[in-house]
Amino acid sequence: MNLKIKCLREKLKLSDIQGMIVSNPVNIKYLTNIEAEGILLITRKENIYITDGRYIESVNSILTINDEVIVYNIKDVSKYDCENFFMFCENIGFEENHITYSKYKEYIHKYKINNFTETDGIIESQRAIKDEEEISILKQSCKILDDCFSYLLKYIKKGMNEKEIANEIEKYFKSKGAEGVSFDSIIASGPNSSMPHAVPTDRQISSGDTILIDMGCKYKGYCSDMSRTIFVDYVPEEIKPIYDIVLKNQEQILKEIKDGANARILTMMVEGDFKINGYTFVHSLGHGVGLEIHEDPRIGNKDYLLKENMTITNEPGIYIPGKFGVRIEDTVLVTKSGCIKLTNSEKNYTIIKTN
Amino acid sequence: MNLKIKCLREKLKLSDIQGMIVSNPVNIKYLTNIEAEGILLITRKENIYITDGRYIESVNSILTINDEVIVYNIKDVSKYDCENFFMFCENIGFEENHITYSKYKEYIHKYKINNFTETDGIIESQRAIKDEEEISILKQSCKILDDCFSYLLKYIKKGMNEKEIANEIEKYFKSKGAEGVSFDSIIASGPNSSMPHAVPTDRQISSGDTILIDMGCKYKGYCSDMSRTIFVDYVPEEIKPIYDIVLKNQEQILKEIKDGANARILTMMVEGDFKINGYTFVHSLGHGVGLEIHEDPRIGNKDYLLKENMTITNEPGIYIPGKFGVRIEDTVLVTKSGCIKLTNSEKNYTIIKTN
Repeated sequence: MNLKIKCLREKLKLSDIQGMIVSNPVNIKYLTNIEAEGILLITRKENIYITDGRYIESVNSILTINDEVIVYNIKDVSKYDCENFFMFCENIGFEENHITYSKYKEYIHKYKINNFTETDGIIESQRAIKDEEEISILKQSCKILDDCFSYLLKYIKKGMNEKEIANEIEKYFKSKGAEGVSFDSIIASGPNSSMPHAVPTDRQISSGDTILIDMGCKYKGYCSDMSRTIFVDYVPEEIKPIYDIVLKNQEQILKEIKDGANARILTMMVEGDFKINGYTFVHSLGHGVGLEIHEDPRIGNKDYLLKENMTITNEPGIYIPGKFGVRIEDTVLVTKSGCIKLTNSEKNYTIIKTN
Repeated sequence: MNLKIKCLREKLKLSDIQGMIVSNPVNIKYLTNIEAEGILLITRKENIYITDGRYIESVNSILTINDEVIVYNIKDVSKYDCENFFMFCENIGFEENHITYSKYKEYIHKYKINNFTETDGIIESQRAIKDEEEISILKQSCKILDDCFSYLLKYIKKGMNEKEIANEIEKYFKSKGAEGVSFDSIIASGPNSSMPHAVPTDRQISSGDTILIDMGCKYKGYCSDMSRTIFVDYVPEEIKPIYDIVLKNQEQILKEIKDGANARILTMMVEGDFKINGYTFVHSLGHGVGLEIHEDPRIGNKDYLLKENMTITNEPGIYIPGKFGVRIEDTVLVTKSGCIKLTNSEKNYTIIKTN
């Protein structure tokens, strides 16, 4: 059986859950590599994927003998089959954060489930720890992202608008073999950079601008994420102290991240230093990245111990309303004794010369 | 109060439901025009939108005095407020097809709801009937789509691949003021056209190809949808009889669509004619279009009476595995006595000359 499903089965056993219905497509992709409409049943003896005629061929071509997943066409699955999949099971797990209330009721009825049990994000927490293959794909996803940043430094010119730059990023990613962006790129220039979630506008780049770039690509399904704050022609004096505080904190956190570090303590360190300097930290310090751009773990105000082979972002930022904002972000891999940066673009003052 | 919310309140009253929590963002956009994270509470006396600091400004700028929607920042809403919104209500409706099991439990607890009641798609069925403004936007969305098809007839050249054409479609839509595509365009050439849900590939267009184009744009939030099957240089003789059957059925259905027509009967007509000719109808005849590309009504094997001012698609198709496929689809507006085609591109044999 493939290792991811095997690991899930062990976790279910530890929680005394005798089977599971997996319906979140991201979790299905994670466990089986399947990207098709359908549901995965983890029964006592088998792994069963139920899909429809449109996908049978592609699903069978993706699965290997090693997966040990049986594929059924939904039209060949009788009421009797459904009622037998989980026979004699005392309880069956489901994804309480994904299935709708209607589906919850439908599954109980269809599969004759006596005790439908919340699994508390069991697969999401398994996904937080990446295996060797996932790490290798994430490295490549981050490499394409770094290359894109180098490309942008030459590409961006005075008079271009934010939307044009955002479109160019998507084009670049696709030309390098990525599926596309992992989220809508943020290209926030001048005063627009003071909004943490700015959307690209028609505003044209001009001399003296700060440009906050937050972007990432999706490569073989895996997301990368990086932010840099760059300058056009020169670095305005009033920004320098703020840039320096953000960078100092970002680099300090890089030194703190390791197996066993507490996400809440990391967040408090940044909040504390910002406060001493008269600023407020308005968003969270980071998040897991993988098949989804935001996934477990959340790096925020809750106690959470980082573990080896998690991939997370580290992204402190300071925003001065109506003026400018600075955010610096890397995607990193947590190791036993520290972390490895997967994004490696320049972080010191980076100036685009347009004259 | 705005007419859409007023109409919803009347429908709730008819179903003896005393309030509702609306959390599906498409339904929120429909009722209020708001596009922001948050939930809409329809309480006995008020309409309340709860969002967070990131969206307060934009939400307030979208709402008019006519909407009668009160906006709260979630951080200013106390536990006491939550428990009072629905006080004295015997039952409160929710969107059983949208909210997750976790949210279902969370809302019951947070808002102290005694009887949380499924609303059976009450807003979705309201959305199926379009008002004057929606129809006018849908017409424009279809106009951009028709123009794109005319453009493609000149743009497509031998040697181009399917992905290039799909990218050009997206670019075209954006250049004409649309937000983008309403779904991933299907550009299926040669044997690829035999798969109803083909994904664009690197396959190059060549002489004698059939190209199945299924595309649509999103304009002011509203989706358009049209399929055409065109030919490169000449129409292969073996395709002609199949093309003619599909077109004959598509045009016959256009004559049948009107207020009161039964979706199941329409579907049976096409299935029957295909069967007589030795073919199978493998997908449904159509679907509603509006804020979502697939919405109520579903035009399939269930009894369903069409109503005036519904916008639906009419899309019969025949697919010969490994060889080719033909689908012809229009978006139409149901009227009292018939239907008005909103997409109007050529449907007779359309040949792209590449020599």
